[in-house]
Amino acid sequence: MIQHSHQTAPTQYVEAKGIRFAYRRFGRSGGVPLVFNMHFTGTMDHWDPLVTDGLARDREVILFDNAGISSSSGEVPNSIEEMAANAAAFIRALGLTQLDVLGFSLGGFVAQELALAQPELVRRLILLGTGPRSGEGMASLTPEAKRIFGARYDEPDHLWLKVFFSPSEVSQAAGRAYLRRFRLRVHDREPEVSEQVGPAQLEALTKWGTPRENPFGYLKAIVQPTLVLNGDRDVIIYSVNSWILQQNLPNAQLILYPDANHGSQYQYPERFVRHVSLFLSEPDAPAPVRS
Amino acid sequence: MIQHSHQTAPTQYVEAKGIRFAYRRFGRSGGVPLVFNMHFTGTMDHWDPLVTDGLARDREVILFDNAGISSSSGEVPNSIEEMAANAAAFIRALGLTQLDVLGFSLGGFVAQELALAQPELVRRLILLGTGPRSGEGMASLTPEAKRIFGARYDEPDHLWLKVFFSPSEVSQAAGRAYLRRFRLRVHDREPEVSEQVGPAQLEALTKWGTPRENPFGYLKAIVQPTLVLNGDRDVIIYSVNSWILQQNLPNAQLILYPDANHGSQYQYPERFVRHVSLFLSEPDAPAPVRS
Repeated sequence: MIQHSHQTAPTQYVEAKGIRFAYRRFGRSGGVPLVFNMHFTGTMDHWDPLVTDGLARDREVILFDNAGISSSSGEVPNSIEEMAANAAAFIRALGLTQLDVLGFSLGGFVAQELALAQPELVRRLILLGTGPRSGEGMASLTPEAKRIFGARYDEPDHLWLKVFFSPSEVSQAAGRAYLRRFRLRVHDREPEVSEQVGPAQLEALTKWGTPRENPFGYLKAIVQPTLVLNGDRDVIIYSVNSWILQQNLPNAQLILYPDANHGSQYQYPERFVRHVSLFLSEPDAPAPVRS
Repeated sequence: MIQHSHQTAPTQYVEAKGIRFAYRRFGRSGGVPLVFNMHFTGTMDHWDPLVTDGLARDREVILFDNAGISSSSGEVPNSIEEMAANAAAFIRALGLTQLDVLGFSLGGFVAQELALAQPELVRRLILLGTGPRSGEGMASLTPEAKRIFGARYDEPDHLWLKVFFSPSEVSQAAGRAYLRRFRLRVHDREPEVSEQVGPAQLEALTKWGTPRENPFGYLKAIVQPTLVLNGDRDVIIYSVNSWILQQNLPNAQLILYPDANHGSQYQYPERFVRHVSLFLSEPDAPAPVRS
């Protein structure tokens, strides 16, 4: 059997809810697969091959484009809950009954709603560069995010240097290395998202971020072991939201990386793979019972 | 050569500044040793052998009793700065010129002052269950700490179940396992501290914790790579102080463990050893330069 990697895994398709989902799966099969949920306006080609291949050494990795993204058909819904329902439909169409779920930024909101709506599907959760419903600065884009997403770049990819990496020289150099890696796959690459995607996702994420009463109470219902991880200087979804997630989830570990913005897992990909591998491979502990 | 362990390493003595320091060293020699700084009213026998032996697999580990503690001579100073000066004298008396420094609680204050006063000595820092100068709830013992340290226990060791572990059944069971481990060494055990130690340490730590202007500015001068680690429900030095440390240190990683109080490294000793080993073994990164 051919061992596929981030670069070679063919794009496949599966239908559910009338949507044709594009996806790729690769890595070591036989265990609980890890499904990746992408950020604002990204396609499955935006993942870092050092991260996906690193995690695929010990488990099967599944990347996909949710409804309306790139070559997946359908519309981008204007709510996180519907995005999670679409993700669940995709997962069930693959015949999976249990998986680990990683979500980055917007994908972290989807991962939370998926764990809430279909808890039996989700074994463990990894929440990267993300926050809770109604988190700090989440009712709209942050001022920094507005400036970064509103600016023009000589090379469109340079947007991600500002979104994911800190202003330090070291972080920016790590960012350029990430940009080279995420462009390595040339053949069978997903098209960038259409112009409809950004506004629909923005509507969904600002609705999700709107202030409400007892905003963090819902986190008590996410009992799966969770790893919350972010940079310590996230200006897109403020790092304090990772702290809030950890403090309100019943069973979460928090890791913050230094001198890092929204995409800290791309700044420290080897460290990240080791932290996630350790988290996913630990034996199940009994759930904490407060006495 | 005999390979010593936590249980078998003989207590040795070295003199500096007129103080006879009791210490033990064991593990794999040849690299940068790791020196442990103990918490309030503890002796070097209070460390968890799963932690010390786990870390000693890849490096030399040095445990010691600072001045005035147990069989070390001298007086407990009434300031953290003097405790750090004593620790530095002990380290230099061993002929060490570079080391990694781990500090737990009060020992974490000492570790910070040591890194400030003698930066060339310290390669990397590990700050456990601790906080910054003038941290939240640090001008005195927290109300929870006052209650816990003020209560009477049928078995004196049971104090540590309340100090280090959360009220959950899982955490308390982990606490009882820790108590068994830290009592395993019977031969050549250090005597418990005298009655003078608590008041002197309390004076030093509350002075250090007193509110002041720009309390966290000093952390900018601690440029060593630092791992800040704590439980998410620390009632002795509130967990938010770990967040404050991370946010104000130039190069710190933060890890918080779930359902854990002040002694989270004893609740998850294997996980802790893996996280610390990863942190200490990573290649040196260039220091972050803000551009």
